[in-house]
Amino acid sequence: MASLLVVSLNPALDLSVTLEQLTPGRVNRTHHTQLSAAGKGLNVASVLAALGHRVTLSGFLGADNDEAFAQAFASQGIVDACRRLPGETRINVKLAEDDGRVTDINGPGMTIDDAAWRALSDGLAETLGERSAGPRAMIIAGSLPPGVTPPMLAELVELGRDAGLPVWVDTSGPALAAAIDAGATAVKPNEHELAAWLGRRQLAAADYAGAVRRLQQAGVEEAVMSAGAEGVLWFSRRGAWQAIPPEVPVINTVCAGDTLVAALLHGVLEDVPPEAALRLATALSAEAVRHPGVGRLDAADLSQLQRQTRVCRLAEGGDAGGALA
Amino acid sequence: MASLLVVSLNPALDLSVTLEQLTPGRVNRTHHTQLSAAGKGLNVASVLAALGHRVTLSGFLGADNDEAFAQAFASQGIVDACRRLPGETRINVKLAEDDGRVTDINGPGMTIDDAAWRALSDGLAETLGERSAGPRAMIIAGSLPPGVTPPMLAELVELGRDAGLPVWVDTSGPALAAAIDAGATAVKPNEHELAAWLGRRQLAAADYAGAVRRLQQAGVEEAVMSAGAEGVLWFSRRGAWQAIPPEVPVINTVCAGDTLVAALLHGVLEDVPPEAALRLATALSAEAVRHPGVGRLDAADLSQLQRQTRVCRLAEGGDAGGALA
Repeated sequence: MASLLVVSLNPALDLSVTLEQLTPGRVNRTHHTQLSAAGKGLNVASVLAALGHRVTLSGFLGADNDEAFAQAFASQGIVDACRRLPGETRINVKLAEDDGRVTDINGPGMTIDDAAWRALSDGLAETLGERSAGPRAMIIAGSLPPGVTPPMLAELVELGRDAGLPVWVDTSGPALAAAIDAGATAVKPNEHELAAWLGRRQLAAADYAGAVRRLQQAGVEEAVMSAGAEGVLWFSRRGAWQAIPPEVPVINTVCAGDTLVAALLHGVLEDVPPEAALRLATALSAEAVRHPGVGRLDAADLSQLQRQTRVCRLAEGGDAGGALA
Repeated sequence: MASLLVVSLNPALDLSVTLEQLTPGRVNRTHHTQLSAAGKGLNVASVLAALGHRVTLSGFLGADNDEAFAQAFASQGIVDACRRLPGETRINVKLAEDDGRVTDINGPGMTIDDAAWRALSDGLAETLGERSAGPRAMIIAGSLPPGVTPPMLAELVELGRDAGLPVWVDTSGPALAAAIDAGATAVKPNEHELAAWLGRRQLAAADYAGAVRRLQQAGVEEAVMSAGAEGVLWFSRRGAWQAIPPEVPVINTVCAGDTLVAALLHGVLEDVPPEAALRLATALSAEAVRHPGVGRLDAADLSQLQRQTRVCRLAEGGDAGGALA
């Protein structure tokens, strides 16, 4: 297993609230509330750590409420290299009503000033430069906090690439475009993000292969897409594959994409045959949607979910137009 | 100054969120979020500690998220005697929109089992029995968590009374009635709570004196009421007084009542002349509504707020019908 460096620039605590009905302007009574350390970076780190990798998580945390993160790092064996900033990590509220309606209330995150950014960037450069125990890959996951611009994200991608590492990036909008321009090795856009990157309003399934060719022309080696009814599409320099996950009860899709990208990175790093790598990543992602949180490797039926996942290699050109649909 | 024992059975963390507009079923973006230790017990303890008393806070806290409470206790010099229970202290969410609409989302609190209750009750009995440094008064503030019934609250009131202490209780509904029956020394009902205690739908200002006589007949020595346009009414065995606070910009009224009751207890314990005691309590309560949190003793204009507070003694019989209005 490998040493891996995950960077989480804009972490969040999630406050999950269940209640009968949300009535604005009134006092509402909850069934249950739960505060958890969250964010794409932590999700990806959790899956990679559970898969046996030595994971270091870097980025920013508010010093005033880092208890839940410290507990999560300790219980999962993740090395905590997050820089503490004065103040609080944002708390995102998710209100789930009995009828299934979900209301998200999300904050922008802590504002990062120049000094904090330089300290992070210098620390990452040092970690990436370590000769013996240095990381074998860098993963940057999540949105950018106030004060961090897309060109600043591009700097981090370049740091990783200059150190000779693959850099996987899971973000969206202008940050995604900047990461691609800076040489990101792998990206995980959904169809909306890929359309936005191409400057188009939307993409049909028939357009995916062409869109991904544009990503590859821009230097991206691995592109993985969660594509709704098309399942999961993976375009690699070694070929293109499609996976259709088994049908499972959908409870919470928040961590499915993070589970997918982490498990696929694992497969690539460990030289797992592509079909098997995509099968595990897709099945573990399906496992994740059955509950809050990332996919569980110890799920009793994970083998069954893998057997029920249909994987096929796409024809030259990567046309995803219904190979398995 | 005195040693005081404050009991907070159902504490909460408050998550204050400001946002432009709350749209249920969507992803909403916040301006700001802040998580703070909260609850009537902590508010009362904070004011009493700021007034110079040695305050011990007992009750229950969830072990998994007690960081904000520990910080509040340490910074304010409050002795932490709260029992940790497995799990999380509830988090109440307050959503404030730009147009002034406020939505509260409140949890029931942790369920208290018999063992936890007996441990708390035994610990309080021990604290109350201390000969040398024992407390001079007991204050029970806030709602009852699941598992704690009004008769159980009555037990605590009796513990304090049996130890020869005044017991001030700030709660509502059946818990308030049980505390009065058990011999509470002082209560702070608002007009709705007092009406409910009398089994009536509402009370007019002209009915307050008669209602308070019923409280006194039930054994209550001090009754303080925030009575809207009537200001603050204080019925004591030594007489009855009314205070009209100065007009201040109203930002947040959550902690005004807790500030009032704590400052009035201070006046009673320190033998401050009644008019002066009520004047400070009313002015500090007015100070509190200008911002989130309890009234600040170091507010630059606190002397001025006290001068602007009108206090008068009510006639025999305590008729509050417009003495100062």
